Amino acid sequence: MAKTNPGRFFEDYALGDVITHAVPRTVSGGERALYHALYPARHALASSDAFAQACGLPASPLDDLAAFHVVFGKTVPDISLNALANLGYAEGRWLRPVWPGDTLRSVSEVIGIKQNSNGKSGVVWVRTTGLNQHDEAVLEYVRWVMVRKNDHDLPAPETVLPELRNTVPANRLVIPEGLDFTDYDFALAGEPHRWGDYEVGEQIDHVDGVTIEEAEHMLATRLWQNTAKVHFDATNRDDGKRLIYGGHVISMARALSFNGLANAQMIIALNGGAHANPCFAGDTVRAWSEVLDKAETTAPGVGAIRLRLVATKGGAPFQLRGDDGKYLPDVLLDLDYWALMPL
Amino acid sequence: MAKTNPGRFFEDYALGDVITHAVPRTVSGGERALYHALYPARHALASSDAFAQACGLPASPLDDLAAFHVVFGKTVPDISLNALANLGYAEGRWLRPVWPGDTLRSVSEVIGIKQNSNGKSGVVWVRTTGLNQHDEAVLEYVRWVMVRKNDHDLPAPETVLPELRNTVPANRLVIPEGLDFTDYDFALAGEPHRWGDYEVGEQIDHVDGVTIEEAEHMLATRLWQNTAKVHFDATNRDDGKRLIYGGHVISMARALSFNGLANAQMIIALNGGAHANPCFAGDTVRAWSEVLDKAETTAPGVGAIRLRLVATKGGAPFQLRGDDGKYLPDVLLDLDYWALMPL
Amino acid sequence: MAKTNPGRFFEDYALGDVITHAVPRTVSGGERALYHALYPARHALASSDAFAQACGLPASPLDDLAAFHVVFGKTVPDISLNALANLGYAEGRWLRPVWPGDTLRSVSEVIGIKQNSNGKSGVVWVRTTGLNQHDEAVLEYVRWVMVRKNDHDLPAPETVLPELRNTVPANRLVIPEGLDFTDYDFALAGEPHRWGDYEVGEQIDHVDGVTIEEAEHMLATRLWQNTAKVHFDATNRDDGKRLIYGGHVISMARALSFNGLANAQMIIALNGGAHANPCFAGDTVRAWSEVLDKAETTAPGVGAIRLRLVATKGGAPFQLRGDDGKYLPDVLLDLDYWALMPL
Repeated sequence: MAKTNPGRFFEDYALGDVITHAVPRTVSGGERALYHALYPARHALASSDAFAQACGLPASPLDDLAAFHVVFGKTVPDISLNALANLGYAEGRWLRPVWPGDTLRSVSEVIGIKQNSNGKSGVVWVRTTGLNQHDEAVLEYVRWVMVRKNDHDLPAPETVLPELRNTVPANRLVIPEGLDFTDYDFALAGEPHRWGDYEVGEQIDHVDGVTIEEAEHMLATRLWQNTAKVHFDATNRDDGKRLIYGGHVISMARALSFNGLANAQMIIALNGGAHANPCFAGDTVRAWSEVLDKAETTAPGVGAIRLRLVATKGGAPFQLRGDDGKYLPDVLLDLDYWALMPL
Repeated sequence: MAKTNPGRFFEDYALGDVITHAVPRTVSGGERALYHALYPARHALASSDAFAQACGLPASPLDDLAAFHVVFGKTVPDISLNALANLGYAEGRWLRPVWPGDTLRSVSEVIGIKQNSNGKSGVVWVRTTGLNQHDEAVLEYVRWVMVRKNDHDLPAPETVLPELRNTVPANRLVIPEGLDFTDYDFALAGEPHRWGDYEVGEQIDHVDGVTIEEAEHMLATRLWQNTAKVHFDATNRDDGKRLIYGGHVISMARALSFNGLANAQMIIALNGGAHANPCFAGDTVRAWSEVLDKAETTAPGVGAIRLRLVATKGGAPFQLRGDDGKYLPDVLLDLDYWALMPL
Repeated sequence: MAKTNPGRFFEDYALGDVITHAVPRTVSGGERALYHALYPARHALASSDAFAQACGLPASPLDDLAAFHVVFGKTVPDISLNALANLGYAEGRWLRPVWPGDTLRSVSEVIGIKQNSNGKSGVVWVRTTGLNQHDEAVLEYVRWVMVRKNDHDLPAPETVLPELRNTVPANRLVIPEGLDFTDYDFALAGEPHRWGDYEVGEQIDHVDGVTIEEAEHMLATRLWQNTAKVHFDATNRDDGKRLIYGGHVISMARALSFNGLANAQMIIALNGGAHANPCFAGDTVRAWSEVLDKAETTAPGVGAIRLRLVATKGGAPFQLRGDDGKYLPDVLLDLDYWALMPL
């Protein structure tokens, strides 16, 4: 009878279910302009048609994370509306750039399921694919969430744990067709440091900080049509706070990382990530990175660099976990990704 | 001598006056992106070119309310700058979709006038038409406002009360050319409920709430080039509050109504509406709807549904008026409109 | 070793240096929509393709100040990251309209240098040029900043003071190709006052005020990819305040000046400007103008008008300096520019 969407509970998922997520979305120069207004984003490839064309692309693609947020946002009503926790990401790969004018939609498949021992909740793993208007996959990733069980009397499903790679191997990275960094313009890109200048283990403090306002994170989150009430309704929590969408922190940290990683032009894979602590308006977000790995690619002049990106709301850079092995309270995000960088 | 616009007073209107409103505006994907950032808007037809094309349209039109706000915003300097109250709407009809790239302008005709008995103010009725760059009407509506009289000694004009329909009759609804819901994709649209699933008298609580920030309503109101100072200048009222543009509440409530009315795709007529109480930053807006009527249309697979949309800032849903017949203090908006829905 | 950009210090500039600024930017309808959302901008030429075409242009250009902000924003990491003060502007000229789809980049040449007598800082003059994707100059201006010296032991450079005009002479104004105000539509533009209606010495109070929010000035400043931390990081100053980008005040004041100067359609030259006092969130910005000069142009129906634009955060209009000759504390901006107006 009720016409509104109550969200799915743990018992509403079964292994192999394929969920078509609602509300396809056409993106344009408007999404690009807003992305630049919401984040201090300056990576040249996502800023300039002329720069992208000099790198072999037909035009400047939508920022990789903007594409991620659009695809992710569509999954919220089906995957995380009743989620108790967003537990992790794995095997994320960008498969094709998103251009202004493209229409994106999302599909998810349930690839793992496990009821918790308390019988009141469980963990669901889904592999989500973002598709464009030509039914070409632009993005895929796995995420797993802890979801409430509505009817505790229902039997537990058979546990199936998906086999997930800890890291996307370099030979599985998909380089955008035509990408060529042979004539890369380092002056226009903003920094002289190339792939060979970064060493595995190197840490970079990105220096700048941004204090977040309620209006900004709500604008950003709505832009991706993620309408989960925790982000918008100040009456939802006892403390009157609105929880900031974790993706907002990812984009803020990535944009801040321009200062020191201006040439890490495209995010091409998401190996894993944790939203270590919640972020609220008034927090001042800072970021630091660590080089985890490097790899060559088959594209001319293009190297791959694997980075840890950490966002904090205080404390010194390069501090991640306490003696107990847990994230320090000022750590907001611990993200592990591959980017493309000129050799 | 003064170069600035003092706005019109009651004595500046005469029956039959035709007012050309200033500042035509070209809309683009930028306005669409901002609309999605400002409101939790998810109706698929205004979100996706591919979805709109599958419904027989050449592209995704600008959200119907965005078109309304652009047309309305232009009228503010001429109609409501000195208004004491925005009294009502009637006979609103969307006549043609607005596409990115269109340029809109507005014209109003004075169709009714009545001086108040106190001699210090009066009511003016205008019929406003929004036109595109081909001089085609895209939208028309009547609104009436109470306006201050500047020179109380001037004689009262002859009272003329326009004859206005309480409701736009279903046979006067203008369906966008080509619209066809025969192959409507309910999964992509977000809900399975079709026209036949809604009953006259049915009430729907849209569940979600959005807490409004000053920055957001000011961005929205400026986007429509509505620059009335009450919305922007915190020094304008003794209490330091900025009054939120009533259209912001309309769009917020309409977007919230996606949850339960995802298939009420296009607003096609505005039968009436009242801004029951003022809205201020910090208010958490919620919405509920009531099905008032249903009608068939001549377009394939397309039904019409007449809805009451109520926005509140607290209280229980489905409470509208007190024992005295007046709107309850938590009611912000009471809107009566026709939408199009797949059969 | 450090990968992050520490900014340039005084000793890093030498006369004749040419600096290629990073991060070219493609603009679209998204930037235009955001400009209208951020400022109460209503000048018809930058709002409507149809209006612009009726004035002989191929389309509506990006607002002149939006073009300025894009060009200026790129220079911040190289010119003003370590600036102690933004001392002045001169010889600014708009050379060519910026159209949606254009890609802008910026280049600066050091044209003057002078170490301060304290040996700890100095003044650097640069002439910045904004270029489009065809390497055509769209904008040029001189600004000078006081910059910290990092190594006080280094010798002072030879002082070179550039010769700068106090005012761009009318015969050096560059009128956009094709501009023709012969059939200018004053009703659509919003005011009847033409070039001949303004007298040198005339002062106009623009009446309206806008109270500024943190979220808004940060969105605006990021949109121009100006990421100087003083604008974003509330922990950067002892008082927890974020300094508002001076360009935000310029755009706000210019937009407010529509009310009284609706026909001052294009800013065509920047003669000078001072950010008299800092602006912070919560300030209510108002504006007044004074006609400084008038000139004819060679374009049909097009006159030039030189205006002083003053932004304030309080106090009465038309008050600029105290008895000591200093700007009054409520004055935020004193700008001197040429605009184009129909005869």
